[in-house]
Amino acid sequence: MSVSAEISLLKELLGDTVPEEGCPSRLVLNHVTSKWGVLVLLALAEGTRRWSELRRAVGGISEKMLAQTLQTLERDGLVRRDAKPVVPPHVEYSLTELGDDLLERLVPLVVWAAEHGPEIQARWEPEASTGN
Amino acid sequence: MSVSAEISLLKELLGDTVPEEGCPSRLVLNHVTSKWGVLVLLALAEGTRRWSELRRAVGGISEKMLAQTLQTLERDGLVRRDAKPVVPPHVEYSLTELGDDLLERLVPLVVWAAEHGPEIQARWEPEASTGN
Repeated sequence: MSVSAEISLLKELLGDTVPEEGCPSRLVLNHVTSKWGVLVLLALAEGTRRWSELRRAVGGISEKMLAQTLQTLERDGLVRRDAKPVVPPHVEYSLTELGDDLLERLVPLVVWAAEHGPEIQARWEPEASTGN
Repeated sequence: MSVSAEISLLKELLGDTVPEEGCPSRLVLNHVTSKWGVLVLLALAEGTRRWSELRRAVGGISEKMLAQTLQTLERDGLVRRDAKPVVPPHVEYSLTELGDDLLERLVPLVVWAAEHGPEIQARWEPEASTGN
């Protein structure tokens, strides 16, 4: 679909291009585009991962933020938590069908960020080097 | 491109599906998926807007957050600020070519959020109604 067709669809769905305060799409955007939400979803892009694998995959995330992010995404219906009844406990996380569907829309955005990241970051660097 | 091809491309670009701490793509994701960043970009989807129009379009944004968000997006090279030399001052904002290119990746995600918002929000509602 072309971007202008996508924008028309958005206006049809929302009555505007911008979701209103308190409307469900703002909730969803807040969860899936949160600083850690997007990274945790990406870490599950290739399949099931254990807690410790997620912790390693998402550099810089604290235990607390990982737990909170997984709980939010699980409640959203995007991530499945599977606790195997074994000793020691073995908990696995994976994307649900809805999560997979979301990932299809999320990955092109992250590819874009990866492609244009260096160019955009360079625009922030003169500040750091000024006055040194 | 299929999602698995997009994921392969991402791994090629980043060495993993998850951007590392401090890498440029995290900076870009933080700016363009920030709570207000995404809404301001959407508000510019259909063309040039004045400050007061943006303020009205993005429900709930404060003057301070709008100023800060526009400054960040302008420095990223995504938004163009055009101050007309007239009295009273007339300042217009629009997407740059880079911003338009980003919007193409952002809109499908927002359409998805609009389509699945009600279903996801419904999963959060039992909590609110419990105990009342």
